[in-house]
Amino acid sequence: MLNTVKTLEWRGDALRIIDQTRLPTEQVYLDLRTVPEVAEAIKTLRVRGAPAIGIAAAFGVVLGVLAADDPPEALRAAAEQAIEELAATRPTAKNLFWALQRMRRVVEQTANQGKSVLLERLLTEANAILEEDRQACRAMGRHGASLLPDRCTVLTHCNAGALATADYGTAVGVIYAAAQAGKRIRVYADETRPLLQGARLTAWELMQAGIDVTLICDNMAAWVMRTVGIDAVLVGADRIARNGDVANKIGTYNLAVLAHRHGVPFYVVAPLSTFDPEIDSGEEIPIEERSPQEVTHPFGVQIAPEGVKVFNPAFDVTPAELISAIVTERGIVSPPLAEGIRKLLDGNEKS
Amino acid sequence: MLNTVKTLEWRGDALRIIDQTRLPTEQVYLDLRTVPEVAEAIKTLRVRGAPAIGIAAAFGVVLGVLAADDPPEALRAAAEQAIEELAATRPTAKNLFWALQRMRRVVEQTANQGKSVLLERLLTEANAILEEDRQACRAMGRHGASLLPDRCTVLTHCNAGALATADYGTAVGVIYAAAQAGKRIRVYADETRPLLQGARLTAWELMQAGIDVTLICDNMAAWVMRTVGIDAVLVGADRIARNGDVANKIGTYNLAVLAHRHGVPFYVVAPLSTFDPEIDSGEEIPIEERSPQEVTHPFGVQIAPEGVKVFNPAFDVTPAELISAIVTERGIVSPPLAEGIRKLLDGNEKS
Repeated sequence: MLNTVKTLEWRGDALRIIDQTRLPTEQVYLDLRTVPEVAEAIKTLRVRGAPAIGIAAAFGVVLGVLAADDPPEALRAAAEQAIEELAATRPTAKNLFWALQRMRRVVEQTANQGKSVLLERLLTEANAILEEDRQACRAMGRHGASLLPDRCTVLTHCNAGALATADYGTAVGVIYAAAQAGKRIRVYADETRPLLQGARLTAWELMQAGIDVTLICDNMAAWVMRTVGIDAVLVGADRIARNGDVANKIGTYNLAVLAHRHGVPFYVVAPLSTFDPEIDSGEEIPIEERSPQEVTHPFGVQIAPEGVKVFNPAFDVTPAELISAIVTERGIVSPPLAEGIRKLLDGNEKS
Repeated sequence: MLNTVKTLEWRGDALRIIDQTRLPTEQVYLDLRTVPEVAEAIKTLRVRGAPAIGIAAAFGVVLGVLAADDPPEALRAAAEQAIEELAATRPTAKNLFWALQRMRRVVEQTANQGKSVLLERLLTEANAILEEDRQACRAMGRHGASLLPDRCTVLTHCNAGALATADYGTAVGVIYAAAQAGKRIRVYADETRPLLQGARLTAWELMQAGIDVTLICDNMAAWVMRTVGIDAVLVGADRIARNGDVANKIGTYNLAVLAHRHGVPFYVVAPLSTFDPEIDSGEEIPIEERSPQEVTHPFGVQIAPEGVKVFNPAFDVTPAELISAIVTERGIVSPPLAEGIRKLLDGNEKS
């Protein structure tokens, strides 16, 4: 049932990705062989989605060390340079920094043992990050599916699916899991301006998987809730604060307000790697602002006056009070979210 | 200060319009000489905005009779055919039917007096509709500007400006009036998917008028309210029911919910010709659904998978309870809106 597109794949000397900027009209795979190539792919959203960004960055560090040579100081310097270059690509998704931190620890522990040992350990770690994401997707899918009625219509935003992860996704993974469990599920997908990940990616992967999907513009969500009826909103996350505030693709906060007004449960689906134990609330989450061109020139076509001022935040923060539950691979966190998150993160440190 | 673009102009034997589908990159004027040409221009949104549609349709009836000949039955038949063809273009905006009804009354009263008298009276009526709209815009501007603080930031949706009327607009007219009255006003303009009237038309005409405008995607509105701060939302209307429910461009209802959540006043600005005294609530307003292509192929560029299902309502209905006031040329209607509207329409019948 699931589409078999490989979002990310390690090819021995390159990270192969599907170029998501070309979807859905073209399926183009790219072999990334250098740190700058990986950094460029993350910056320009050829690879995107918080978990996928983390995985791509981890393999980026492998590529950085692959191009370096002994002695240990040179390996360490090359790894650190790769980590810094990759960390500077996008500021909001926690998974990026979390994955790079894991890679950094391996470098610290292993660089002294020379290039071949370091490379092997880094590759093992990157593969572990990928494999853990796979398993996390499946676990989130199971937990999340339990929240949905046997027949339901859900709304999702941006792409939190197979293309955002190493497996079948976070929020969209819940949809796949529900469908696989025999639930009859219909999906409304927000197109998600400016970069149209909902139209280009989510609608595409759901159609590939044979799931009933209807595309809408972002500004139609309230009308769909009122006239069609929506049983749940499912979204991913880029960073989650200790109090349960959630940074996710711009427009998520809009949707949360609309869901609240219409009594629709609003579920965030994200792995533990998305939680940031170092910040207390969403106010501390850095929000990336991207180029005005993304708004004024979709696909290179000018749709706005030359020189118009544009505000183009790539993310927003949904306050915890609007979130009905957060679905993680360890289970479902219900309100009060701060308390549930504390227990979750404590458990994580102990494990 | 105002831009001098002529949205509509009668040229003796043609209705000249600026082709709004070509803005902002090209300023192309079209001379419409037949009823089918006017109908096509309305259907394809070359001319759009509830008041402008009404005016265009009125001149369309003139063109229909211009092409006809005596005897009176033939004139009456030509006029009726024109009215029916024009009425079938778009279902939601009340102004269209209101203007056509005025033209029909003139035909009924005058067709017996022969072509030249009928033509003259129809032209007089069409010009009156246009002139009344001009004056209504100015009056709405004055009334609406009184609602705004001396320094303020407002948010608007779609285009309810000069391009939607015969003068400087309804919701955007209030912005012009406030600026002319010396208020320091900043505007955030929703781009308004799928047809991008906010990006293409509102941003353009505000820039032409020298007003500080920032373009955003529709899904950024809540984040702008939370982080930038918005003092008022101003929107136009396509049809207003007796109870105060308002049909307007899709996304208006979204915005009304968001404004309510953030304590931002939500003002609808519309002339009396937009009110429908025959319907009790928004549930009776027919909502036009338009082609999926508008969503999947903006400017002809494919942004969604081939064959994806699309829901593309052109309008939504905002319930009266979310509306802080309706600004008309006769003054401001405050809640309870049903009562204010009853008085307004009673006064209109008497006048």
